[in-house]
Amino acid sequence: MALMTGEQYIESIRSLKMKVYMFGEEVESPVDDPILRPSLNSVRMTYDLAHMPEYEDLMTVVQDDGRKINRFTHIHRSADDLVKKVKMLRLLGQKTASCFQRCVGMDAFNAVYSTTFETDKKCGTSYHENFNKFLRYCQDNDLTVDGAMTDPKGDRSLAPSAQKDPDMYLRVVERRPDGIVVRGAKAHQTGALNSHEMIVMPTQAMQEADKDYAVAFAVPMDAEGVFMIIGRQSCDTRRTEGSDMDVGNAEFGGVEALVIFDDVFVPNERVFLNGETEFAGMLVERFAGYHRQSYGGCKVGVGDVLIGAAAVAADYNGAAKASHIKDKLIEMTHLNETLYSCGIA
Amino acid sequence: MALMTGEQYIESIRSLKMKVYMFGEEVESPVDDPILRPSLNSVRMTYDLAHMPEYEDLMTVVQDDGRKINRFTHIHRSADDLVKKVKMLRLLGQKTASCFQRCVGMDAFNAVYSTTFETDKKCGTSYHENFNKFLRYCQDNDLTVDGAMTDPKGDRSLAPSAQKDPDMYLRVVERRPDGIVVRGAKAHQTGALNSHEMIVMPTQAMQEADKDYAVAFAVPMDAEGVFMIIGRQSCDTRRTEGSDMDVGNAEFGGVEALVIFDDVFVPNERVFLNGETEFAGMLVERFAGYHRQSYGGCKVGVGDVLIGAAAVAADYNGAAKASHIKDKLIEMTHLNETLYSCGIA
Amino acid sequence: MALMTGEQYIESIRSLKMKVYMFGEEVESPVDDPILRPSLNSVRMTYDLAHMPEYEDLMTVVQDDGRKINRFTHIHRSADDLVKKVKMLRLLGQKTASCFQRCVGMDAFNAVYSTTFETDKKCGTSYHENFNKFLRYCQDNDLTVDGAMTDPKGDRSLAPSAQKDPDMYLRVVERRPDGIVVRGAKAHQTGALNSHEMIVMPTQAMQEADKDYAVAFAVPMDAEGVFMIIGRQSCDTRRTEGSDMDVGNAEFGGVEALVIFDDVFVPNERVFLNGETEFAGMLVERFAGYHRQSYGGCKVGVGDVLIGAAAVAADYNGAAKASHIKDKLIEMTHLNETLYSCGIA
Amino acid sequence: MALMTGEQYIESIRSLKMKVYMFGEEVESPVDDPILRPSLNSVRMTYDLAHMPEYEDLMTVVQDDGRKINRFTHIHRSADDLVKKVKMLRLLGQKTASCFQRCVGMDAFNAVYSTTFETDKKCGTSYHENFNKFLRYCQDNDLTVDGAMTDPKGDRSLAPSAQKDPDMYLRVVERRPDGIVVRGAKAHQTGALNSHEMIVMPTQAMQEADKDYAVAFAVPMDAEGVFMIIGRQSCDTRRTEGSDMDVGNAEFGGVEALVIFDDVFVPNERVFLNGETEFAGMLVERFAGYHRQSYGGCKVGVGDVLIGAAAVAADYNGAAKASHIKDKLIEMTHLNETLYSCGIA
Repeated sequence: MALMTGEQYIESIRSLKMKVYMFGEEVESPVDDPILRPSLNSVRMTYDLAHMPEYEDLMTVVQDDGRKINRFTHIHRSADDLVKKVKMLRLLGQKTASCFQRCVGMDAFNAVYSTTFETDKKCGTSYHENFNKFLRYCQDNDLTVDGAMTDPKGDRSLAPSAQKDPDMYLRVVERRPDGIVVRGAKAHQTGALNSHEMIVMPTQAMQEADKDYAVAFAVPMDAEGVFMIIGRQSCDTRRTEGSDMDVGNAEFGGVEALVIFDDVFVPNERVFLNGETEFAGMLVERFAGYHRQSYGGCKVGVGDVLIGAAAVAADYNGAAKASHIKDKLIEMTHLNETLYSCGIA
Repeated sequence: MALMTGEQYIESIRSLKMKVYMFGEEVESPVDDPILRPSLNSVRMTYDLAHMPEYEDLMTVVQDDGRKINRFTHIHRSADDLVKKVKMLRLLGQKTASCFQRCVGMDAFNAVYSTTFETDKKCGTSYHENFNKFLRYCQDNDLTVDGAMTDPKGDRSLAPSAQKDPDMYLRVVERRPDGIVVRGAKAHQTGALNSHEMIVMPTQAMQEADKDYAVAFAVPMDAEGVFMIIGRQSCDTRRTEGSDMDVGNAEFGGVEALVIFDDVFVPNERVFLNGETEFAGMLVERFAGYHRQSYGGCKVGVGDVLIGAAAVAADYNGAAKASHIKDKLIEMTHLNETLYSCGIA
Repeated sequence: MALMTGEQYIESIRSLKMKVYMFGEEVESPVDDPILRPSLNSVRMTYDLAHMPEYEDLMTVVQDDGRKINRFTHIHRSADDLVKKVKMLRLLGQKTASCFQRCVGMDAFNAVYSTTFETDKKCGTSYHENFNKFLRYCQDNDLTVDGAMTDPKGDRSLAPSAQKDPDMYLRVVERRPDGIVVRGAKAHQTGALNSHEMIVMPTQAMQEADKDYAVAFAVPMDAEGVFMIIGRQSCDTRRTEGSDMDVGNAEFGGVEALVIFDDVFVPNERVFLNGETEFAGMLVERFAGYHRQSYGGCKVGVGDVLIGAAAVAADYNGAAKASHIKDKLIEMTHLNETLYSCGIA
Repeated sequence: MALMTGEQYIESIRSLKMKVYMFGEEVESPVDDPILRPSLNSVRMTYDLAHMPEYEDLMTVVQDDGRKINRFTHIHRSADDLVKKVKMLRLLGQKTASCFQRCVGMDAFNAVYSTTFETDKKCGTSYHENFNKFLRYCQDNDLTVDGAMTDPKGDRSLAPSAQKDPDMYLRVVERRPDGIVVRGAKAHQTGALNSHEMIVMPTQAMQEADKDYAVAFAVPMDAEGVFMIIGRQSCDTRRTEGSDMDVGNAEFGGVEALVIFDDVFVPNERVFLNGETEFAGMLVERFAGYHRQSYGGCKVGVGDVLIGAAAVAADYNGAAKASHIKDKLIEMTHLNETLYSCGIA
């Protein structure tokens, strides 16, 4: 199946029946909302660039069986893959000057891939096979996948199972022959709104008593029982005030959603962890390892834009030659390249 | 004449006929505007506290002739005065968690006071007498005075008189027997909107060629030809969206105005500098010296609120005992008290 | 009794029969030793300056009963006294570019003074009277007094009484009708070698079980059973190699001694704390409070010399106008003055 | 020709007739001097490790023609070579906890290699061929080569040719048919004493007037007219005081020499730059680029030892669990790994 174009991507998201709330009301068409659209545009860039010959080597990967996929759905095979990942993310940061959200799913893919392998080996489960089937589905349909980790957490000095409110961490509330029912929420999901699917992972290492909380799985964003509440962003409504010039980064942007799971059913073949508490920590650490490295690319790309903007502002003010201005631009560049170096290394 | 109450202050500002523009339209009643009002409330606190016995020693000063005035209109007489100034500013920062704006006029009073004295001594002018009359008027009527220094500046690598647009720095455009006519603008005026009067000062040291730009004077905020354009603040319109809880610091706040002088007439007795270029730098440096010290009070007071808010947030999340949280609170306190120490010393 | 001259001070130290060891051997005449002498010269400066009219106001204080004493033996009476203390210490830092050691005794005087008062009030002891007699003796004879706090400590995760070796913290080993016998050591004593007397204090807050370790007292530096072992300093022997120019700060310097108490008898009237564990922490905190403030003076004085030296080095290399050099000198000055501000405030 | 063993290396240095001065006197046998020997031991480690199978891949490189050489004499061919360089340097830092000096020659090899190529292309010279012959000689004899760049410089605000003393920068004083005669000095040469040969390079970009100063070449360390004056190191003589435990890093260490060129003759085939001023800056920048990256390895290796030593000291004091100690160890590790990342990237 072919890589989607940016336009196809937008329409594929439009066709999902997501339940999205903002300012206390349901949003009829999130894809066309002036506050939400810029974040969709940012993800779209991951599709548009994949069709441009000059970025093909960074944006796409040919699999062993000849399939050409978007790098965001690729499982890394070498150090060279990791370097290319960081370079791809820096490129996208430069093109959008914002968060393009799709890396969280890529990092989730790679973390779940190896963790399910190790879980199966130890526990005799078949999570790795489940995951591979899901991964293939995402690759072949060029899907954007959200990776959801952060729970509301409640009292952070207490374990998930020791909370006054048992739903402060997402958990299994029912086990059926054909699947599980989960309840809870995942906070700060930057890409949820613009994703086709979502991989849900535990947010920390777990103890035996937290068995019901050690759960990982995937569901479509419009699964029965999934709701998104869009959090406020600084100056979000300013985009609706009709000004042509007063909108900052007008075309691209980001939002965050609180994703609520109101007794969502997950079929068995979409479950990647279910009670194997000892592997919760491994999954978190591997995801975090990949995701920290990603920052060595995307933040640097955004940094490139900020440094350029600062330099232009200095030029406009006739201050480009002032030594304290040059010092600051050099310091910004120095920090940015140091961050990039850590990502690359 | 008595110190004004907070209520009297509000009404005295309401009675001024200021010309205020926001979002491209004139604001009918700035005092009642939901976006502008919080900044007025902040200044009001400088009047309210002056009537409370527990703050009398900090907020008011008895002059040699027995008049009791607000410390914001006082000329410092001793190191003890300077210490009390910083303590007063910290108190106000704690009470408003925002900029209360009136210090800029106090610092302007003190800078102009000594600079006019030295200018007169050297040049045989009578600026010091002019200023003393104006100061007495402000003290006796308990007025809030804006201190305006920052010009738009244009190309910062060029002197005022070398700019392509001669109005990039405020200047004298006409000299009449009874006064001067000035044109230009002052930017980033946090208190202009809530002041009765404004002291205008040059923004940097000047050369002989910049004679017309070396000018200082005072005018009422509703003088003929004075206009204010309110700059946008992050989330300003959010205050108008009708939420009860989603407004941050709901009662207090700050705004900034670009104050435009469209050929404003200033009578001779309100002029404090007029072409004596060599004293422009002295005025700037003295103002800056007082104003830097003021930051050692007001920012620290706001810091007290932020540190407390951070500590409460940590408590709510059950994270108050986490060592990295405690470290950060300690670091915040350390920086805050160091800043205060520099102000006091 | 008159203030000693620098020369009288040197001779008064020479006449003490201190037991001093260095490089494994006893030092015959510490006063004349080329490695030790520079540190003695530094203390001498506190005597020399007290006789110079231009420094009289900083270096000396007239007591209520008319006695004129060195400020280093003075009990602070006001905020003004504390400001003068810091100014005196900065002056001495500038004159010696090294540690002049006598402040530790001054800070000990002031900490013990108020702590003994509170201990007596609570416990009915007479430590305050003991201390006042000792203080008067030091004032009238213009003595230099070491303040000794830091024990060797052993395993820092264990309390004094829980150490494997009971002598890791200094303690009372015998209680006699006429006094106490103490055993242990105090480490890192910069001024011990050049002092007439030593005030010994506990090094941390104590629990009930640490009763024998909660002890404070004063003894002469040549008391029976007191030994000093001089620690190595970087490049110490270099002073003995006979070069004229290769000695850094040739005239002034510092050393550190480990002071050993090998069953030293302390008569009752020299005891300031003896088992009242709850006051050990108070004594430590008050001493630390005074001593931290002292750093806001002495280190700044040394900083003045370092900044000047760095500026001269830049001049010699023709680099005084390089902007990165100027930036560094400005940053040094900025840090130095911030430190001073904290001391003053 | 085979790689030298550590022992062979020591003897090869012993057989050179270097002129070395320390403390104003000539050193008879630098190889056996207790102050100088530790620095020789550090270089020896680059020979010893090359014979250990577990380090063979890092320490040695097989050339295209099958010769196996020490990596310190290798011209980098790929990004992988640069990564291995950094890993080799970190290993040596860990083994010696000091500067092992040989990297400066490796970086000089690589800088001169490409710069001579470009110079020849532009100027029709034959420096590249000269250099290749010299390089081959060093590879085949497994030599340690010093890279000498820093001149005494005099007044740093003046160009080399504008100095009052024309010898403040090393220069050509005579041009003969068979070679050149050079005069001047190179300062801060850490490895000179333990090298067989020395590559001399200019220390900064040059203008047309500095033609005589734009010179690069190689000479043996015992060439006629070359003298070394060993600079003092902190605590250098302490190594001679006979203590078993009081010597810090007893086996390894570093020294610095001022290398004086008192009219040294350099034959034509050893000259790599001679008056082509425009290439002086390129040589400096390329050397600096390689050398900065080297620091990402060697300093990190030394850092590994320091961090370990700090952690052991914390254990000994029973302080390993104190959160402020752990924070500092983590910060040290963080900085160290960031440095390594920049080197690797």
